[in-house]
Amino acid sequence: MKLTPIMDPEALNRFLEADFPQLHTDGKVFDVIAVRAGAITMRLEPNERHLRPGGTISGPTLFALADVGAWCAVLAHIGPVALAVTTNLNINFLRKPEPGPLFCDCRILKLGKRLAVVEASISGEDRTDLVAHATATYSIPPR
Amino acid sequence: MKLTPIMDPEALNRFLEADFPQLHTDGKVFDVIAVRAGAITMRLEPNERHLRPGGTISGPTLFALADVGAWCAVLAHIGPVALAVTTNLNINFLRKPEPGPLFCDCRILKLGKRLAVVEASISGEDRTDLVAHATATYSIPPR
Amino acid sequence: MKLTPIMDPEALNRFLEADFPQLHTDGKVFDVIAVRAGAITMRLEPNERHLRPGGTISGPTLFALADVGAWCAVLAHIGPVALAVTTNLNINFLRKPEPGPLFCDCRILKLGKRLAVVEASISGEDRTDLVAHATATYSIPPR
Amino acid sequence: MKLTPIMDPEALNRFLEADFPQLHTDGKVFDVIAVRAGAITMRLEPNERHLRPGGTISGPTLFALADVGAWCAVLAHIGPVALAVTTNLNINFLRKPEPGPLFCDCRILKLGKRLAVVEASISGEDRTDLVAHATATYSIPPR
Repeated sequence: MKLTPIMDPEALNRFLEADFPQLHTDGKVFDVIAVRAGAITMRLEPNERHLRPGGTISGPTLFALADVGAWCAVLAHIGPVALAVTTNLNINFLRKPEPGPLFCDCRILKLGKRLAVVEASISGEDRTDLVAHATATYSIPPR
Repeated sequence: MKLTPIMDPEALNRFLEADFPQLHTDGKVFDVIAVRAGAITMRLEPNERHLRPGGTISGPTLFALADVGAWCAVLAHIGPVALAVTTNLNINFLRKPEPGPLFCDCRILKLGKRLAVVEASISGEDRTDLVAHATATYSIPPR
Repeated sequence: MKLTPIMDPEALNRFLEADFPQLHTDGKVFDVIAVRAGAITMRLEPNERHLRPGGTISGPTLFALADVGAWCAVLAHIGPVALAVTTNLNINFLRKPEPGPLFCDCRILKLGKRLAVVEASISGEDRTDLVAHATATYSIPPR
Repeated sequence: MKLTPIMDPEALNRFLEADFPQLHTDGKVFDVIAVRAGAITMRLEPNERHLRPGGTISGPTLFALADVGAWCAVLAHIGPVALAVTTNLNINFLRKPEPGPLFCDCRILKLGKRLAVVEASISGEDRTDLVAHATATYSIPPR
């Protein structure tokens, strides 16, 4: 499997801002910072809404980061026209995240005609121990 | 396995409002409407923030409903003091939800000393075809 | 969603025996015992090969029962010609099974043109407490 | 998270043979070939029983390889006395495997006091494209 991205971080971020404005109603939260063959990295800058008592980041925020990141990894390789939809997402919560930026490294495991499977690994600013790990499946409409 | 709930809908809703105010920053969104042996039903009243273009409800909202609902099913049977945390959640997205209230029927599959496993079935107002289906695991601290 | 089965238990069992003889190299292990709208029940009769020390049934046996059962639920509704393949299976192991027959109740959550999602609930002869619970996704080729 | 293995491939293989003889009723099938910090690699040598018509390897065989491999990754770091049991396994089937040896690279995502989470990546002899990808959770009894 040889994968070649056709969108760079700027193109992905422009697409997210134009077509999914509700992702950024509280300022810029999701930011694609790198695109490589078969992979992307997304950064999340949490705001008050994403925090939980005890100074941690909410589960739905981690879910959204894994889902938006993995979906952008697919789009980076098939282009912004495709209407890929999430069909399955399995997430393991591994450690309580600190209340700061999170990084989501997304790697395409399979990019088929009908289905794409992506792995998402979320860490904090140390970029070492994982906070959460997910695998997600996307249904890709006929092109 | 014989399960007996020890919290009713009012007690669960009071607990959510007091301890998780950030779940309700835009008005009352999550509402436990029924508690039975081994099961609860939660209703979600979506607001602007939960909607997506094309008139549907966002994936993170469905995730949050499954997670908060399944977690309340556990609390209903072990009481509000327990600090149960989600360790795994697997969700299948089945149909595009209409932009209205959602109902989440949660059923405990196992309530052990250390782990609880709960199934969550999400439907719209027709209460027939499922919009999403999830299974979640919670780690229960020593009591 | 209104589902109407087009194969009965006899037709499903004949199909399994003819096309998947390796499922029965040690005698009849898998047996479809009921078909209803959107659902089937499969019985597994374990032999020595399926047992583990301590008198329990092996994990791969439970996986195989969930997978074969859920797959038969799909076939019962689309017919034996379809070459559906498993794309994802998530299984929770809930209780140690006794070394006797197991029953797998399979319920179709979604039967789309391209994907089917099925829930499988495995119990022992008491048919009450679940031994394992799975959800599986099948990719359905163009018909 | 700094992980240090305390069992090498020989010790793991001896343990599997002594305590799980039913894994090898048809000759040596599972073989730990490498142990590293936080990771192991297991090789599976399929026999007739693991094959399917059309010359592929069965789903339950891939499941068993992921489960036995991930479990050995945990044992390599906590020792053979621990009675860790699988509580959840999520597997994505990505490509049809060729009927030859399979390799399962297992990486520990979390090794806690009560739960371990392991990722398993299965490939064929080319060791490039993945055949299947799984994440598994193990419950670890008090030590």
